[in-house]
Amino acid sequence: MDTSIGRRRWAIAEGYIPGHSNGPEPAMESHETCCILNASDRDAQVTLTIYFEDREPVGPYRLTVAARRTRHLRFNELTDPEPIPKETGYASVIESDVPIVVQHTRLDSRQAENALITTIAFAAD
Amino acid sequence: MDTSIGRRRWAIAEGYIPGHSNGPEPAMESHETCCILNASDRDAQVTLTIYFEDREPVGPYRLTVAARRTRHLRFNELTDPEPIPKETGYASVIESDVPIVVQHTRLDSRQAENALITTIAFAAD
Amino acid sequence: MDTSIGRRRWAIAEGYIPGHSNGPEPAMESHETCCILNASDRDAQVTLTIYFEDREPVGPYRLTVAARRTRHLRFNELTDPEPIPKETGYASVIESDVPIVVQHTRLDSRQAENALITTIAFAAD
Amino acid sequence: MDTSIGRRRWAIAEGYIPGHSNGPEPAMESHETCCILNASDRDAQVTLTIYFEDREPVGPYRLTVAARRTRHLRFNELTDPEPIPKETGYASVIESDVPIVVQHTRLDSRQAENALITTIAFAAD
Repeated sequence: MDTSIGRRRWAIAEGYIPGHSNGPEPAMESHETCCILNASDRDAQVTLTIYFEDREPVGPYRLTVAARRTRHLRFNELTDPEPIPKETGYASVIESDVPIVVQHTRLDSRQAENALITTIAFAAD
Repeated sequence: MDTSIGRRRWAIAEGYIPGHSNGPEPAMESHETCCILNASDRDAQVTLTIYFEDREPVGPYRLTVAARRTRHLRFNELTDPEPIPKETGYASVIESDVPIVVQHTRLDSRQAENALITTIAFAAD
Repeated sequence: MDTSIGRRRWAIAEGYIPGHSNGPEPAMESHETCCILNASDRDAQVTLTIYFEDREPVGPYRLTVAARRTRHLRFNELTDPEPIPKETGYASVIESDVPIVVQHTRLDSRQAENALITTIAFAAD
Repeated sequence: MDTSIGRRRWAIAEGYIPGHSNGPEPAMESHETCCILNASDRDAQVTLTIYFEDREPVGPYRLTVAARRTRHLRFNELTDPEPIPKETGYASVIESDVPIVVQHTRLDSRQAENALITTIAFAAD
């Protein structure tokens, strides 16, 4: 039975890593997460491309999401080809060789109490 | 008249049950909810499969959403085949034998003031 | 030119009107909103049906969204055929005779600081 | 290779610019943002039309999102043909001559701690 679900191309138009945090790390560190579900029976080779407001896109960032696994990737932790700068607006396109589902979440703890946002990303046709 | 609305397969890529809470329970207990609407005239037999970052998926969790009813299921309350661990990233696939609508919500009360997130889940084609 | 955008049937699976509030009313009163955009050149005759966890659905609630207007409807303010009880899980189906766009928002001010959620509702095919 | 992703018509049914703020500006100023990603190789000519509850729509507001760029547009900063009033419900339609992805975000700092919401906008067929 094919257990895969999702699409091969996704986009998140909003991106912003807050520059500071309140509360114990790593749970309460301000962060932005790209949650990926690969419900299929094949490992997913995933690439991310990061778009900016004032310069050419950076990427591809490469990662693998194993078959029947989820991966909650913090944009903060990307380093190759280069880290994503904080306090800078960006957007991202996520591409995979098998169907995946992508959800975007941010925890913002710049003020004393944390704020959270989430949305399912845009799934290309 | 067919009053059903929705799809038969849904996915939520983000999942995380906070490990602690502030404020009176159960309303202010940190929790993650899968809200299901079954607007059809037939009971929906629903199964959930939970995906993790580092081990095989767990499930199916089985539940019924009666005809013309909604059910706001807290992931915290799932016990069969096993409870979902706290402070652990997960994802979920929700399948039904009749069309349903699925929405994902979390109340995070780890800090003094609660934070809320919600999104309509991803609807498979 | 046809300026309409959207669909004729929408669903929101999550619904919950908090039972109390902090801060000045009406802006900071806990509330749940169904934002409707009618970008078409015809008035939209809209009906809402409210689904519960343990009893038959209630409705239709009827309203008009004029041509080229938006309406930010607070579920709290619905009275005919009956008010929606507070602190009770519900879901809703929104139907219109012209295409509309529906977005769900909640302001929860049960604790001292307000929490906000939003999502575009599920658009039926 | 065509790197474009998205659609040419989008809608956001919820819109509301809070009337006041807490915390250092501009980061913590209450604001509402329309994040646009243009992943294509052509500049996008974008128009916004703003819909209100009690008067005719205003627009078009015109902007360009350059090829391979994102733009995080604050509704607060729109001035031509006229600024969007604060504390007023509105909705928006976003149109582009090339495919784009649109996401809606609000930071509400009316109370001491900020609240955040986001959702991918509604993509027209």
